[in-house]
Amino acid sequence: MAILLYELVGADAARPFSPHCWKISMALAHKGLEYKSMPAPFTAIPRVEEGATKTVPLIRDGDRLVSDSFDIALYLEETYPDRPTLFGGDGGKAMARFVERWTQLTIHTYLGAAVLMDIHDCLDAEDKAHFRRTREQRFGKPIEEVPVGREEKLVAFRASLEPLRSTLSVQPFIGGQSPLFCDYIVFGAFQWARIVSSYQPLAEDDPIRDWFERCLHLHDGLGAKVPAAA
Amino acid sequence: MAILLYELVGADAARPFSPHCWKISMALAHKGLEYKSMPAPFTAIPRVEEGATKTVPLIRDGDRLVSDSFDIALYLEETYPDRPTLFGGDGGKAMARFVERWTQLTIHTYLGAAVLMDIHDCLDAEDKAHFRRTREQRFGKPIEEVPVGREEKLVAFRASLEPLRSTLSVQPFIGGQSPLFCDYIVFGAFQWARIVSSYQPLAEDDPIRDWFERCLHLHDGLGAKVPAAA
Repeated sequence: MAILLYELVGADAARPFSPHCWKISMALAHKGLEYKSMPAPFTAIPRVEEGATKTVPLIRDGDRLVSDSFDIALYLEETYPDRPTLFGGDGGKAMARFVERWTQLTIHTYLGAAVLMDIHDCLDAEDKAHFRRTREQRFGKPIEEVPVGREEKLVAFRASLEPLRSTLSVQPFIGGQSPLFCDYIVFGAFQWARIVSSYQPLAEDDPIRDWFERCLHLHDGLGAKVPAAA
Repeated sequence: MAILLYELVGADAARPFSPHCWKISMALAHKGLEYKSMPAPFTAIPRVEEGATKTVPLIRDGDRLVSDSFDIALYLEETYPDRPTLFGGDGGKAMARFVERWTQLTIHTYLGAAVLMDIHDCLDAEDKAHFRRTREQRFGKPIEEVPVGREEKLVAFRASLEPLRSTLSVQPFIGGQSPLFCDYIVFGAFQWARIVSSYQPLAEDDPIRDWFERCLHLHDGLGAKVPAAA
């Protein structure tokens, strides 16, 4: 039976956008596992699988429910060891944590603010109200003000990506000659922005764009199947 | 026959201080390989092994000469596969590159400027002149001016370490439950500052200090054997 992947969507159920959910759709495709996308808007998540989780991604694999993107990747690695590896060994498992924390603190922090209104605008009415309330609490200001200053911060953001850029100057993927879960961690962040917003955070000649294109075309173009925001 | 490790020293040959050389002394100890430290001041490097290298570390293992810290680590992993792993698999080899680039761009950039005069002050007379000339060319100003402003930049530097701090909140080493070469990459940078300078870049309650202490005491306290600068 196919694995069920509960993933975040806005008003359009065919445009899942959560960075953490993209990590898992890519990981499932990497493992060659069949899965069925189960769209869940923000306000529907508490009702998913009888309240099994506060956040998505959540997967159901037979009678197993697993949430948290990193835990899901570890679960898939352990449960399907004969399929292509997501980590390339125990060292890769440990260091993928560092990539995760770096991505969260460097990329999510900037992009999450830069495209906040675009995320809002993708949502259905009920989710819009929920999103506004929770994000205004988190940021301490009207959501319209959160992206203000993104242009001024763009130079520093691009500079902060230099460890990624430099890594990609010696190898085609963060995982080496071929992608690993660490690539999907970073891919998820840029895919999130690509799907909700036309805002372009990377310079046209940034080699990170080449890597991102390579990722979009992995696994029969899974990432490219959802068109970029207009 | 013991491996020879050519490593950078100042006026005191018993105080090797190069971050890249520390990566390799730790890696050799991790592999349980006997090695002999061969001290080389900056201006002696061109004469090492008949001009084999422009930079240290350089190792001689029998008739093999290998330079560049990352290449040496890869060489040791390949040549001594039955000894404790430095990477924990191919994924770890790839992601250690990311840790290396992040360390270089985040930690070396700040610390290299902050303790520049302390490095200078450790050197013998001939190296002092060489160091001043090459660093003034690199920084485009008198070396005395390079550390200026380190206090103002300290808050941002400490904040930039958050991906490391956050990783160490879920596991004791960057390499997971035990250290890998990725730990020695970051350790090398802080050990460099510790040996040349009394300047303390980490707050007293920073959990990165706990990790650094753990690293200092690895391999029979190899790192701690060289006392901190007074």
